[in-house]
Amino acid sequence: MQILAIESSSLTAGAAIIKDDVVLAEYSVSFKKTHSQTLLPMIDEVVKMTETNLKELDAIAISAGPGSFTGLRIGSATAKGLCLALDKPLVEVSTLEAMAFGCGPYNGLICPMIDARRRQVYTALYRFDEELNMVCVMEPKLLLMEELAQNLKELKSDDENVLFTGDGMHVHGAWLKENVSKSKMAPAVCSTPRAAAVAELGAKKWREGKAINADDHRPIYLKKSQAEQEREAGIYTKGSLRPGESGTQAKIC
Amino acid sequence: MQILAIESSSLTAGAAIIKDDVVLAEYSVSFKKTHSQTLLPMIDEVVKMTETNLKELDAIAISAGPGSFTGLRIGSATAKGLCLALDKPLVEVSTLEAMAFGCGPYNGLICPMIDARRRQVYTALYRFDEELNMVCVMEPKLLLMEELAQNLKELKSDDENVLFTGDGMHVHGAWLKENVSKSKMAPAVCSTPRAAAVAELGAKKWREGKAINADDHRPIYLKKSQAEQEREAGIYTKGSLRPGESGTQAKIC
Repeated sequence: MQILAIESSSLTAGAAIIKDDVVLAEYSVSFKKTHSQTLLPMIDEVVKMTETNLKELDAIAISAGPGSFTGLRIGSATAKGLCLALDKPLVEVSTLEAMAFGCGPYNGLICPMIDARRRQVYTALYRFDEELNMVCVMEPKLLLMEELAQNLKELKSDDENVLFTGDGMHVHGAWLKENVSKSKMAPAVCSTPRAAAVAELGAKKWREGKAINADDHRPIYLKKSQAEQEREAGIYTKGSLRPGESGTQAKIC
Repeated sequence: MQILAIESSSLTAGAAIIKDDVVLAEYSVSFKKTHSQTLLPMIDEVVKMTETNLKELDAIAISAGPGSFTGLRIGSATAKGLCLALDKPLVEVSTLEAMAFGCGPYNGLICPMIDARRRQVYTALYRFDEELNMVCVMEPKLLLMEELAQNLKELKSDDENVLFTGDGMHVHGAWLKENVSKSKMAPAVCSTPRAAAVAELGAKKWREGKAINADDHRPIYLKKSQAEQEREAGIYTKGSLRPGESGTQAKIC
């Protein structure tokens, strides 16, 4: 069993290869370069370094969202392209689940958070059971910080630890420390999304027969893009352009 | 604060850069290639990908052992060379401590294990405190499996979990499950040594003023090499060669 995994849902771009429960290679970069510049060279690196024959892969695993719209599209397009060229199935892995899994088998609630601006985060809650299987306690949602705190009040006991991770933790860590009991912040080593986590969860899903045809894959956005929201709100009419763009002047309501 | 970290104490070769508590890049390969082939190209990769100016590094952190003698020497020589060329200090990080730290803030004992053959492992025990600082419960040691089980009996309560990680876990996992209460095996995502963990612990030590002059660095072997053991046991006399080597016939006692 051999799987190539791609993570590009946020600032972090990553590629990893897992074979028979061992992570053969992992390469992650959290830097200002765009994923369109970094992702393919990184995949090429891990493939060459491990002398992987792409034809022998069982599947491509993709961090499917939620996250940055552009990041998710670049990752999905890359994964779909590889699956099509190699005639391989695709495995979708929840970005939030992979972020929680990358924290190791923490004994308490794990709350991955992706900053969605305006005091909102993409978030979910997980817990490991006694056999170290990860259990979803709250499905991925887009929540205001106050809503997350309320959910945590209902889903965890006062003396249970909750470990926050992800870039949402960097933005809202101080607020969480004050407003959520027993809140802990993940160290740097497990606070960025990891392609190795996507690979391991992807391998598990592949074994469970949950691989899909790459054509059927769509990123999980959880919320509509700014452009879609504006169109629905009637801010921009269909086919119109925004102010500053050349062509017909956009209608601003 | 910016640190380049090197991990080459076992089959895994790794390089990572941490800047102001964010892992900018991490690259790990666990494959049959020797570290002399992989390590420098990997360092070059992460440096270029993050546009790091090596002159602006504060220190080089090295996974200082215990582990594979050859792996440690390649890592140490590389780190020393870089420190000398760049006029930077070096930070030594215990390989076992970094392996434990790479498992995330586990709530229980963490037992990293490096296989040393003949039913022996290089091992230590750690625990996170309430502020997520890692505390050493048992200093790094070379132990037989039975000795490790005895140490665990004395140092942990029956109902406390212990998380095993490292290649020693792969070799002795089944035995540990039968002989140590509440034993858990780390998932693949945190069962190989990570340069990012060396980087984060290295950054902490650097802040605490624990960087040293690279000249003073020696890898932590914990046991003598096979050649040294044989010389001391009188199997090979000083200056003699082993059977099969050209030159004077070795004396075998």
